Amino acid sequence: MKDIGKLREFFKKDRYIIKNGIEIVEINQDFAICKAEIGEGHLNAKDMVQGGMIYTIADFTFAVLANYLHDFTVTQSATITYINQAVCKTLFAKSVELDATKHNCIHQVRVYDEKDITIARVQINGFIL
Amino acid sequence: MKDIGKLREFFKKDRYIIKNGIEIVEINQDFAICKAEIGEGHLNAKDMVQGGMIYTIADFTFAVLANYLHDFTVTQSATITYINQAVCKTLFAKSVELDATKHNCIHQVRVYDEKDITIARVQINGFIL
Amino acid sequence: MKDIGKLREFFKKDRYIIKNGIEIVEINQDFAICKAEIGEGHLNAKDMVQGGMIYTIADFTFAVLANYLHDFTVTQSATITYINQAVCKTLFAKSVELDATKHNCIHQVRVYDEKDITIARVQINGFIL
Amino acid sequence: MKDIGKLREFFKKDRYIIKNGIEIVEINQDFAICKAEIGEGHLNAKDMVQGGMIYTIADFTFAVLANYLHDFTVTQSATITYINQAVCKTLFAKSVELDATKHNCIHQVRVYDEKDITIARVQINGFIL
Repeated sequence: MKDIGKLREFFKKDRYIIKNGIEIVEINQDFAICKAEIGEGHLNAKDMVQGGMIYTIADFTFAVLANYLHDFTVTQSATITYINQAVCKTLFAKSVELDATKHNCIHQVRVYDEKDITIARVQINGFIL
Repeated sequence: MKDIGKLREFFKKDRYIIKNGIEIVEINQDFAICKAEIGEGHLNAKDMVQGGMIYTIADFTFAVLANYLHDFTVTQSATITYINQAVCKTLFAKSVELDATKHNCIHQVRVYDEKDITIARVQINGFIL
Repeated sequence: MKDIGKLREFFKKDRYIIKNGIEIVEINQDFAICKAEIGEGHLNAKDMVQGGMIYTIADFTFAVLANYLHDFTVTQSATITYINQAVCKTLFAKSVELDATKHNCIHQVRVYDEKDITIARVQINGFIL
Repeated sequence: MKDIGKLREFFKKDRYIIKNGIEIVEINQDFAICKAEIGEGHLNAKDMVQGGMIYTIADFTFAVLANYLHDFTVTQSATITYINQAVCKTLFAKSVELDATKHNCIHQVRVYDEKDITIARVQINGFIL
């Protein structure tokens, strides 16, 4: 979906993303960046950003970039590795496309905080419809 | 944490899980099951349960079982594969431990709906502190 | 390929598998098992079975079962977790199908030794052509 | 192991790698590259480079770089995605470290052929002893 305005409109219908306070920061040919201001509702029982939230921002940032670069693309599989504990004010995710074929693409997503500390790395396989 | 009452108390402090409406259904030596009644706030731009929500219930169900079977355990890495689109009323996840050593465990989690259709499969590596 | 004889003939053309001494032990509707007698040529610099060999037997066992249950199937992605060091005489792998749709299947493979100790767990996504 | 000569000596004891014809091309602070001239013994039943061989060169290239950058490091888990079929003369793998903490590191490995076509992508989690 080459029209960034339409792409942003499309993703405004993602109610899970809105509920989680995740916003698109940037979309271009090379990468997409999303962010979320961390609040009480993002925390786990140990007062750290919950692992599901960390995955969610990564997967959404992948979806933003993949749907910009290709036709409608969905996540087929993803592998997340948690690197450092997330005790932070703002969570960011940046997705970069590593490779793409006609019906498949693979992205590397880095999740990091406002101090640029890596929280997680996610390798995502997309299926391009 | 062998005391199920204390374990449930501990996880009541997980505000991300509460916000997402995820509840523990059962915990025993062989498996843990969690569920969530799906509402508007769980949906993506295509009116299906968002991929992040599907991951979140899987990862939480793993955490419940792993922290019951072992000392404090955290997710180190996880691989999710989406099998069928999630258009459902209730989402369930069931975690089973495949293997464990002193500091590592590996679980297989199945996410499914009220018709018992598989939505996703997640293999999770835990680090036992 | 429902004819087990033809399936075995087909896989006899896999020269990498022959070179690695991997043999099919059993194929049925529920699982496939392969094995390899471990020799000098399978070892790494620490005298343990090399991680590549452990992956290879797992992936091949998946291929055997998937190509028996479905039409021609290839590995799309796989996640391997090493559980215990492999110091053994015989290496086995057993593949079980967790789910399948029209064009995708997902298997769980356990690699183990002659003492039934788990060496690795592999979750494999196949694409059914 | 900061001494590249000693590191190369250590890996000469990896008999699986020698049998597979895999050689170290380069090791430096930023990356490691390995290669293998493809022969009959690397092929599967469809005359393509076997998936196990593709994994093996990736995992070994990771091991070379990780053991250069850190103390003794082993593969804990790895996710491989196959991108293009491998019909080639020479197979290469290049490993780059994405992040490292005291006991863990994560690498991204690209496997490619002599025409620079990507064959596979592998994300590998290492445990630093």
